[in-house]
Amino acid sequence: MKTCRGHFSIGAAVTALVIAFQVKKGKLLVGQAGGATAVINSSLAGVISEAQSSGAFDAIWGMRRAAEGALQGDLVDLTGISPAGLAALAATPGAALTSSRHKLSDDDVERLLDLFRKYDIRAFLYIGGNDSADTVHRLARMAAYGGQELAAIAVPKTIDNDLPETDHSPGYGSIARYVAIATMDSAQDTESMPTMYPVKFLEVMGRDAGWVAAAAGLAKRQEEDAPHLIYTPEIRLSRERLLADVERVYQMYGRVVAVTAETVRDESGHPFADTGAELDAFGHPLLRGTAAGMCRLVQSEMGLRSRFDKPGSLQRMSMAHVSPVDLTEAAEVGRAAVRLALSGAGDRMITIVRDSNQPYASHTEDVELHLVANRQRLMPLDYLGSDGSVTDAFREYAMPLLGPEPLPRYPRLDDLLS
Amino acid sequence: MKTCRGHFSIGAAVTALVIAFQVKKGKLLVGQAGGATAVINSSLAGVISEAQSSGAFDAIWGMRRAAEGALQGDLVDLTGISPAGLAALAATPGAALTSSRHKLSDDDVERLLDLFRKYDIRAFLYIGGNDSADTVHRLARMAAYGGQELAAIAVPKTIDNDLPETDHSPGYGSIARYVAIATMDSAQDTESMPTMYPVKFLEVMGRDAGWVAAAAGLAKRQEEDAPHLIYTPEIRLSRERLLADVERVYQMYGRVVAVTAETVRDESGHPFADTGAELDAFGHPLLRGTAAGMCRLVQSEMGLRSRFDKPGSLQRMSMAHVSPVDLTEAAEVGRAAVRLALSGAGDRMITIVRDSNQPYASHTEDVELHLVANRQRLMPLDYLGSDGSVTDAFREYAMPLLGPEPLPRYPRLDDLLS
Repeated sequence: MKTCRGHFSIGAAVTALVIAFQVKKGKLLVGQAGGATAVINSSLAGVISEAQSSGAFDAIWGMRRAAEGALQGDLVDLTGISPAGLAALAATPGAALTSSRHKLSDDDVERLLDLFRKYDIRAFLYIGGNDSADTVHRLARMAAYGGQELAAIAVPKTIDNDLPETDHSPGYGSIARYVAIATMDSAQDTESMPTMYPVKFLEVMGRDAGWVAAAAGLAKRQEEDAPHLIYTPEIRLSRERLLADVERVYQMYGRVVAVTAETVRDESGHPFADTGAELDAFGHPLLRGTAAGMCRLVQSEMGLRSRFDKPGSLQRMSMAHVSPVDLTEAAEVGRAAVRLALSGAGDRMITIVRDSNQPYASHTEDVELHLVANRQRLMPLDYLGSDGSVTDAFREYAMPLLGPEPLPRYPRLDDLLS
Repeated sequence: MKTCRGHFSIGAAVTALVIAFQVKKGKLLVGQAGGATAVINSSLAGVISEAQSSGAFDAIWGMRRAAEGALQGDLVDLTGISPAGLAALAATPGAALTSSRHKLSDDDVERLLDLFRKYDIRAFLYIGGNDSADTVHRLARMAAYGGQELAAIAVPKTIDNDLPETDHSPGYGSIARYVAIATMDSAQDTESMPTMYPVKFLEVMGRDAGWVAAAAGLAKRQEEDAPHLIYTPEIRLSRERLLADVERVYQMYGRVVAVTAETVRDESGHPFADTGAELDAFGHPLLRGTAAGMCRLVQSEMGLRSRFDKPGSLQRMSMAHVSPVDLTEAAEVGRAAVRLALSGAGDRMITIVRDSNQPYASHTEDVELHLVANRQRLMPLDYLGSDGSVTDAFREYAMPLLGPEPLPRYPRLDDLLS
């Protein structure tokens, strides 16, 4: 704490009084869980900066490797990070604290609460998605049951955009921007050599919900533009339908750019291109071969040369494509979580409420965690139109989240000649 | 041609005289061949703009789908594209004229020359790589043999950077920038969840030369930084060596980020992960499964969870990662080719000569095509250091080509705490 020497002022006296009377609220512990995003560090920076300026905590601690690391006592003191350090942190993609997907046992929950008691941790902020919200919910309930003071707050984060009760989740706007631009870029390649490689698959993330794949549709301005096909996890896709779709588009335009979620399933609910799927700790399938399998199918059944782009983790890490709206909101949900913890509330998740679209504006609220934990919000199916288009309703929903800078325009040669 | 009305000036009179005495040199025909890049349209815009301002051609024509389209008479008049149209063209990735990899037969060469004669095409500018240089060379030789006036000039373009006689090729600086940043982004993801997914492969382009894969090494600042391993097409990689490399790095850092060219070969010269390789029209193997195969190998032999990113065509199309140096030089080689054609020379390729590194400066020269056609410049092996590092010599060579803006810095948490 800096003190004022030499110049004595009424302001300084008031500040000193406020600090003297303020009751310190133990330590704040923050963690980052699940898959990383381009903006999850912005949320972390928001938490730290708000906690610092509140002056209300004895210390601000972070857990490395999320709950898994905390169980091993792997905690780190973040109290003294400088404003410049926080700015650098917010501009760095990935989870600086490191993350994990460890599924907590009931024993783990008790051991964590013991640890919180031991270190006087009274606020626990967990930046994550559905599974992490469940972890926070279990900690909050068990703490309440045992009479332990704990403000346990979930800070929303997921590129999948499948958290319920919030208009959208930090991480989504940036991956949506990435996917829309990647669709345009990939299509430029296919349009450059249509006779050589007429068919392209772009494989994107999204787990069980089509929000990420649908963002590709934002790239489409004219009917002939990519994407020509979008496959989301919500649908069931038969091999026959894929081949018929590709054939139809190929006959129309002589080229096909299809965007597929990596988790598309066939008509019996199995992964579309099962290459020996494994499950993660939460039972979610780990898939690798969807677009590759589609390529092989189209190539062998139709004789059309097919290629695929699978940006993989690049799509959720690219600061070159980050949405400024997303970056700002990610910081804001972090700050809001600190304020909520200071108000004494817990067992809640911060939500984003949209105020207007033109200009885009939002504010944060919060919601009880039992409404969120382990629930998924799938995408309304009427957000998708036919043949790779999205509806105006989806455009209105998603476009503002990509940030104010419009998507690039790539004219075709004929546009320049007219 | 605009004329000056009302105000008569000496300048206008001189201009009118120059135009009156200038002998029109028939038509200029321009094409884009081989794989597209983020800056190949910048070269096209450079050609058109220089040809327009020279006033020396009856018309500026483009060939669609390169020589393949021209053989089918698919030509387009580019003479009237506006300055704004040219600026939009230069900012658009991909080949606006569309491209192909059609290998010309001797009959094709004769038919093309007939076409040139029929339409009074006296300058032929072909933007492409090694194969395209060979096409230009054959046309030039055959035209000279038959006494046909033809200034046939190759305009260098290849992300592979394997054209000889030029310091580097337009397209390389931008993909090098993409690969360096993608390596950093991908590593941020791996470092965010090291216990879940400790091994990552990033698959990049490069055909027979390691220039593109080596660019990943520019991302490395400290020994523990990615990339930990770089595999270029020049080396022979056994399964045993790959596993030993991964094991060594994993033991040191608990994570492995390896960058591999899609064309890496095993010790007997076969594609490292052969998934039924096909050949393109020039006999180059079309590979798809290198990183995927490496993942399967590491996972099954070492039990380490492995993932891969394969940005595919995105790496050569991303305007978000384009190098301003590359974009400018791409336009300049196009302009230089027009000036060379106007000087009456032919059977030559424009080259880039580096003048200085600090500040970076270059100029164009030109070279006889027989020194270029179908020759490849592999990367000096001493550009690579051990375990994913590149030497100072490579840094000095490559870094200025990425443009003046430095690569991002992604601090680790411990850097912010100190």
